[in-house]
Amino acid sequence: MWNSIATAPSDGDYNAVTTPNGRIHTPAAEKCFALSLILFEVVCLIFFALKFDMPSPKNNDADTVSTMNYYPMYMDVHVMIYIGFGFLMTFLRKYSMSAVSLNFVIAVLSLQWGIIAVTMAHQIGSNHFSTKLLDIPTMINGDFAAGAVLISFGAVLGKTTPTQLVWMTFLEIIFYAFNEYLVLEEFKVSDAGGSMVIHTFGAFFGLAVTTMLGVPTESEQNHNTSRYHSDVFAMIGTLFLWMYWPSFNAALVGSDGFQQERAVMNTVLSIAASCASAFAATKMMSHTKKFDMVHVQNATLAGGVAMGTSCNLAISPAAAITVGFVVGIASTFGFCYVTPKLEQAIRMSDTCGILNLHGMPGVVGGLAGAIVTFSASDDFYGDSLTDVFAARAYRSSSEQGWYQLLAIVSSAGIGAVSGLLVGFFLKSKLFRQQKLKYEDDEWFYVPEECHA
Amino acid sequence: MWNSIATAPSDGDYNAVTTPNGRIHTPAAEKCFALSLILFEVVCLIFFALKFDMPSPKNNDADTVSTMNYYPMYMDVHVMIYIGFGFLMTFLRKYSMSAVSLNFVIAVLSLQWGIIAVTMAHQIGSNHFSTKLLDIPTMINGDFAAGAVLISFGAVLGKTTPTQLVWMTFLEIIFYAFNEYLVLEEFKVSDAGGSMVIHTFGAFFGLAVTTMLGVPTESEQNHNTSRYHSDVFAMIGTLFLWMYWPSFNAALVGSDGFQQERAVMNTVLSIAASCASAFAATKMMSHTKKFDMVHVQNATLAGGVAMGTSCNLAISPAAAITVGFVVGIASTFGFCYVTPKLEQAIRMSDTCGILNLHGMPGVVGGLAGAIVTFSASDDFYGDSLTDVFAARAYRSSSEQGWYQLLAIVSSAGIGAVSGLLVGFFLKSKLFRQQKLKYEDDEWFYVPEECHA
Amino acid sequence: MWNSIATAPSDGDYNAVTTPNGRIHTPAAEKCFALSLILFEVVCLIFFALKFDMPSPKNNDADTVSTMNYYPMYMDVHVMIYIGFGFLMTFLRKYSMSAVSLNFVIAVLSLQWGIIAVTMAHQIGSNHFSTKLLDIPTMINGDFAAGAVLISFGAVLGKTTPTQLVWMTFLEIIFYAFNEYLVLEEFKVSDAGGSMVIHTFGAFFGLAVTTMLGVPTESEQNHNTSRYHSDVFAMIGTLFLWMYWPSFNAALVGSDGFQQERAVMNTVLSIAASCASAFAATKMMSHTKKFDMVHVQNATLAGGVAMGTSCNLAISPAAAITVGFVVGIASTFGFCYVTPKLEQAIRMSDTCGILNLHGMPGVVGGLAGAIVTFSASDDFYGDSLTDVFAARAYRSSSEQGWYQLLAIVSSAGIGAVSGLLVGFFLKSKLFRQQKLKYEDDEWFYVPEECHA
Repeated sequence: MWNSIATAPSDGDYNAVTTPNGRIHTPAAEKCFALSLILFEVVCLIFFALKFDMPSPKNNDADTVSTMNYYPMYMDVHVMIYIGFGFLMTFLRKYSMSAVSLNFVIAVLSLQWGIIAVTMAHQIGSNHFSTKLLDIPTMINGDFAAGAVLISFGAVLGKTTPTQLVWMTFLEIIFYAFNEYLVLEEFKVSDAGGSMVIHTFGAFFGLAVTTMLGVPTESEQNHNTSRYHSDVFAMIGTLFLWMYWPSFNAALVGSDGFQQERAVMNTVLSIAASCASAFAATKMMSHTKKFDMVHVQNATLAGGVAMGTSCNLAISPAAAITVGFVVGIASTFGFCYVTPKLEQAIRMSDTCGILNLHGMPGVVGGLAGAIVTFSASDDFYGDSLTDVFAARAYRSSSEQGWYQLLAIVSSAGIGAVSGLLVGFFLKSKLFRQQKLKYEDDEWFYVPEECHA
Repeated sequence: MWNSIATAPSDGDYNAVTTPNGRIHTPAAEKCFALSLILFEVVCLIFFALKFDMPSPKNNDADTVSTMNYYPMYMDVHVMIYIGFGFLMTFLRKYSMSAVSLNFVIAVLSLQWGIIAVTMAHQIGSNHFSTKLLDIPTMINGDFAAGAVLISFGAVLGKTTPTQLVWMTFLEIIFYAFNEYLVLEEFKVSDAGGSMVIHTFGAFFGLAVTTMLGVPTESEQNHNTSRYHSDVFAMIGTLFLWMYWPSFNAALVGSDGFQQERAVMNTVLSIAASCASAFAATKMMSHTKKFDMVHVQNATLAGGVAMGTSCNLAISPAAAITVGFVVGIASTFGFCYVTPKLEQAIRMSDTCGILNLHGMPGVVGGLAGAIVTFSASDDFYGDSLTDVFAARAYRSSSEQGWYQLLAIVSSAGIGAVSGLLVGFFLKSKLFRQQKLKYEDDEWFYVPEECHA
Repeated sequence: MWNSIATAPSDGDYNAVTTPNGRIHTPAAEKCFALSLILFEVVCLIFFALKFDMPSPKNNDADTVSTMNYYPMYMDVHVMIYIGFGFLMTFLRKYSMSAVSLNFVIAVLSLQWGIIAVTMAHQIGSNHFSTKLLDIPTMINGDFAAGAVLISFGAVLGKTTPTQLVWMTFLEIIFYAFNEYLVLEEFKVSDAGGSMVIHTFGAFFGLAVTTMLGVPTESEQNHNTSRYHSDVFAMIGTLFLWMYWPSFNAALVGSDGFQQERAVMNTVLSIAASCASAFAATKMMSHTKKFDMVHVQNATLAGGVAMGTSCNLAISPAAAITVGFVVGIASTFGFCYVTPKLEQAIRMSDTCGILNLHGMPGVVGGLAGAIVTFSASDDFYGDSLTDVFAARAYRSSSEQGWYQLLAIVSSAGIGAVSGLLVGFFLKSKLFRQQKLKYEDDEWFYVPEECHA
């Protein structure tokens, strides 16, 4: 039978409707989500009212120029955040609605709060408070913050209530902004595409949260699988992520000394190689010895993560391909062997396998960047050396290399510790816990399926 | 059983095939659609042959320059029209094929006829007839016209034959072009993203047409619901619309005085706020007290519509967020309470709820633009004042404000009246009426579903 | 029952799993695919290590400039290759996973090998060997090569093993690069969007291969049909191809003399007209006299192919619309009548109907280009004449026209002959042949469907 309540407009008296499922929602739960969300938005509104302004001829001091040339890259990053991450997570057979919808609202909150938090972190750090004129690079920073949160979301996919996600977003971004400031401004590290700041941080944060939340029971895991069309939907996400990854890595890279062009081309080559090697690896390693869509959807992208630090540095096409090739295989290996072991060994249930797609390749990317930094011959960069590494004005290449390594430690460490704290908070009695795992039903009105 | 007729290439004698369903098509119906479409295309061809030419060094008078810098924005708008609107309308469980396909052909016809009609309206208005050199902004005007028609299509989705849609497209664009010329050239009103010219006009036109067509019977409404994967498909449309709305609002805005940059950023903030508030509102207001995909798919976008007039004006980030926040809630309220009431009260059946996504937010957007115009301090705009409002060279800000209000009345009024006329025409005996409501079957070959 | 093996992480001992289906894979088959792929990638790696370098201030000779201005067009072409072709081929009801995944890996291999092969062909041809600095136009050439291979893939869709596809890709691109060099450098022919070099070559190659592979039996054809949602998925591909076709045709066109702007606008008009005429034609010609999604998905795009040669030449808007209108009808006619006849007559089974979407419109496009070349008045191009046709510095317009015609013959001839050779090779005992036609099962782990 069709549930004709949902959209039947002839039934005017909606408030009188009582569905059997409807009863599992206490009014408190409804209010908590809506109140949390409105509170979040109001906090953002207050900050925007007090601290941000739009550029105009009125406030056009000498160095304000239009940043519309960043706009195409910004839109590409947008597509990755909303379509890429959103659809990549639709693979679960009964959680596609939640995946794409909650991805949407988390990204929207992260975008706003990320702009605020990153801007404030830099203003607090430099002890220089002033009204900030919004520009496109600042908006891109908001999307980058969203990237970190959505990576963490992948680890807990299907295990949390939307209310928990709202609070996780709010708290994670504060720690994200702290680490981002530390790495980029205090350590003066180069991390163009965020192998460390975004991927490593987001992955370690998410893995810590999901470990705190625990492993669902075997029966609760029933729906932790895909179905045919949810797997095809997920490919929309995979392909848009794959295509626009070069834009992500190159979005905020300056154009001096061919930096941005290198960032694009190294990322294309690396992510192409990881796609090829992931296909070879899934055929050899998957337990059915067939292509496994989990690997096709995820491991193919590892080469983009692994180029996040070194893409604009002195790295050759062959090196980029080699890095991509290796992480494509390593990521597939992780999905096949590491994630199941960790779930048994340390109770870390990682729904999307972000350890394999973001954690491991993020660390590899940070290491690759450090190695290139140690070994870089300065004349490769010519006059653009200090555009690439601001601190090389007073540091040697090996000093810079040690700072690059420190940034990996900082990102992983701050991510993991803050993730444990936030996970502890989300697990507390303050929050109702998700009852139906990996299912839309508890929070979404789901139309009955038609077999006619 | 599988219907192997459709694509089985071994069956060479296609003309001899008679399907049981096939009989409901009289040859007249087939010919009417094809003839209408060919006639439409021939009319376009004649106008293009007589009135338009391609730019080349030959006809390069002094002021002809390449407009390729508009191209990325044009492509973004393209994505909204074809993917955005197309997939947003696939939510109906048995009308997804029709939705995305008819959206496609309507947009294609609108694009061509819109270029012609808008160009001719301006040439007639200025009494200055000459061969027009095509350029990218003119092509964007074609897509904008398509936007208005597709909004109207949303109101009548599933209720009309394709033949009726072809004629609706042809006629609506004539009125659209008239109102667009009136508002932009005679009233000299600023409406960058078309809150009034596109959204208000398109919504009132579509609501008038659908009111003339009447409300389907209760049994005909059986398929006016979604299913799981049609709801996920619709999210493709929602997300692309959400992401590229800043491009839509900023596509034709000049770059003087940070106008285009403001248009982008105000739209991002407003549409982000409407997404957040729509999620809060659907949880509180939907009759199941769960997230309702209808709201997730639609009300989240209201902030983009509401920034259509004021995005490039003197509006602060906080004001943009406030407007978006309010219309997100108001739009959800409309889906829950207003649309059902109007269907009962005045027989207005609005399949996609365009009143809530385009009509109400469009009027709000027009009002917001007028308020900003009344209150604008001229020094905010600096030298760019007359780039923003051409008529402020000789008008005061309050005079300009009154013209802005007049444009709302004009767009709603011309839209509603012309919609009633066109609806009356489409309802007439000249057209066969759609028999199967909200179903592909009558016009599309639909493969049987597989349950094996 | 749900097959919980696939993603259930609690089952740690993956290697012990034996599925009934799993047995049809001999280890040899697994190794052949993985080894072929790894071998392919290693060959690419060697060439990249020996022949290519990244731009930097170090190797910045006088004429090296950043090519980032090509980047937006490159991304658009990327979308066509990965989303466009990928989803267009998901229409088969049990082969959607394979279609989008194999499209992905073939494109990735083609991208790398295409960059190498095209670069080497030009270096061999000019007998001038040097390290090549990578730039964005070179990357676009890689995507163009992928386009040709994916067209051929369309002809054999569902009939080959992934291993065969890897080898087909490797070999086809060598012939592609040879013909591309011959046509563009030796014949000095203008073919901006590749009507001849990409579409005609790719189509004739693919048709030759598929003819060698033969026609599946009637029972093997059981799954050579669509289902509801696979048809909707395919529309994602269609619409992205349709929208970004102007970028494909204009990507490498210079901006002198409004060439690029003309390329965009002529392609938009032509592909709009082919969409309109295909809708009229499918309603008249399809065997059910309803809209057939095969035509909606494919014939609508014919106008883009047919503008591939002439889009930047001296062609008027009305001529572009006329060409698009005619090929839209001709393509639909081909799907209805020509493809079934050819399958019976010469055993050519063409899964996606590439003859109708690429072969015929490609030849028409080449002819249109030749006609425009013959008849071109030089003053239309002004100073840009030799930017458009390099060889017009020493050739008359009719000499150039004859070379344009020769390029059609070359592309079709080299495509067909090399396709027969490669088809013969793929059919040989060296390769295991695909057992399950048009089904994912043989190579992909497919989750069981849920009917609960």
